Amino acid sequence: MSTVYFNGEFMPLESARVSVLDRGFVFGDGVYEVIPVYAGCLFHAEEHLQRLANSLALIRLPNPMTLEKWEALCKDLVVRHSKGNQVIYIQVTRGAPEKREHVFPSADTEPTVFVMTSPLNPPVAYTGEAAITHPDIRWQHCDIKSINLLANVLARQAAAEAGAAEALLIREGQLMEGSSSNVFIVENDMIKTPPKSNLILPGITRDVLLEVLTAANVPFEETALTETQLRNAQEVWIASSTRELMPITKLDGIAVGDGQLGKHWLNAWSLYQAHKQAVCQA
Amino acid sequence: MSTVYFNGEFMPLESARVSVLDRGFVFGDGVYEVIPVYAGCLFHAEEHLQRLANSLALIRLPNPMTLEKWEALCKDLVVRHSKGNQVIYIQVTRGAPEKREHVFPSADTEPTVFVMTSPLNPPVAYTGEAAITHPDIRWQHCDIKSINLLANVLARQAAAEAGAAEALLIREGQLMEGSSSNVFIVENDMIKTPPKSNLILPGITRDVLLEVLTAANVPFEETALTETQLRNAQEVWIASSTRELMPITKLDGIAVGDGQLGKHWLNAWSLYQAHKQAVCQA
Repeated sequence: MSTVYFNGEFMPLESARVSVLDRGFVFGDGVYEVIPVYAGCLFHAEEHLQRLANSLALIRLPNPMTLEKWEALCKDLVVRHSKGNQVIYIQVTRGAPEKREHVFPSADTEPTVFVMTSPLNPPVAYTGEAAITHPDIRWQHCDIKSINLLANVLARQAAAEAGAAEALLIREGQLMEGSSSNVFIVENDMIKTPPKSNLILPGITRDVLLEVLTAANVPFEETALTETQLRNAQEVWIASSTRELMPITKLDGIAVGDGQLGKHWLNAWSLYQAHKQAVCQA
Repeated sequence: MSTVYFNGEFMPLESARVSVLDRGFVFGDGVYEVIPVYAGCLFHAEEHLQRLANSLALIRLPNPMTLEKWEALCKDLVVRHSKGNQVIYIQVTRGAPEKREHVFPSADTEPTVFVMTSPLNPPVAYTGEAAITHPDIRWQHCDIKSINLLANVLARQAAAEAGAAEALLIREGQLMEGSSSNVFIVENDMIKTPPKSNLILPGITRDVLLEVLTAANVPFEETALTETQLRNAQEVWIASSTRELMPITKLDGIAVGDGQLGKHWLNAWSLYQAHKQAVCQA
């Protein structure tokens, strides 16, 4: 049984149980974060923990810890587990007051803090994955990494039932992102990804990739993309902390480009792996 | 300590605790229902339980009970408490699988079922309440009574901080509903309320009121309403199971109409109270 951190203590996962009045459970009133760990090395932990701080600020929930304390806690939890690859999951909710009511509870209500780590199998090699398109019916604050994920769950389930790895979300004709990933396309040999806004998650893997591309003098554009551009793209990729850079070679059952792994993806993948190696010797 | 129903058993509220991996806690993957109880009489329970069934179907979660079993369970819980007025809260989530992943868990994962009842103080007399307007940033399935309520929480909190009882949500210039209520206005002596759609909750109190008005030959219109119509209305009301029919006499700090209780509200309120009396002798 995995050891987790829950409200100030380390305990077996099975012992970590929340009140049915926890605002995470009755209102989805909380946020989360996911940090990949390669052979014990937290990958870009500061960026993830800064995003957690941002998500908390956007829902007006005081951050229960400094970034330094979060990082120390994550490292403490990681060393209690295997030396292998892991993925840390952090969730903070607005606590469990005595009564269910929409307004924030009194300021002395302690937030619920939960951190676990699970084994991670980073992708070693991709041969090309399928994706579907799906209407983006989410709210207008997708920049908050909140636990209000029902729309994401339904989209991902639709993908799974179509034998696909991800659902790419279309809002009013525009390509936004995946159900739990950011999206890139290649058009006229140019790498393009939607710009940050309130309608997409500011992905850390997305940002890291753009930094890596910049450092390698590989050009890219952050620009609004239409569903038509997606369908006509040479290449389509998704980016997430656990899937890293996944090539989509089939979209809604139709080959993307020539249906093979793209040369731009291969280059970006190599650059990203080299960066992982440089940061984490992983 | 209140007795609640939790996953097949009656127990003290404090003992009802869910796994941190419950999909209600990590994804907001669940729905809920609220049923008012007057002196032990469940008010329009069938309609509430049918809406619960509809919400479950819309998120593709099999209903764990028949309507008859739900009603029997609610009645069982009610008699375990005071003979006074109560409000039943039901929540069903997609259970607690061993792993957090977006796709639905295996079909043998038991849903989490939680039912509690709390004391209810129905409104006896209103003198007029304040409301604010607030941008509607919610998702596009507000017809599902889901526990993804972060946008509603933030709107209600904004209202509370403005000294107001409710936030009326405006989406692209259109009046939709309150953060946890439906909305009515009176314009040119005609009662008007937005029509049902995927963007508002199909309120039971709303429906009951429309039936009551119909029976009393009071005309009304279900029609799209703009923010401007709201601001120029003679009267504004909100409807919910616990607040019944609340008159809004101040909107964003400005008097609604003449700032007094409206004659149409007084009539609707009387009709609604008479209906409660007829149904529940309450």
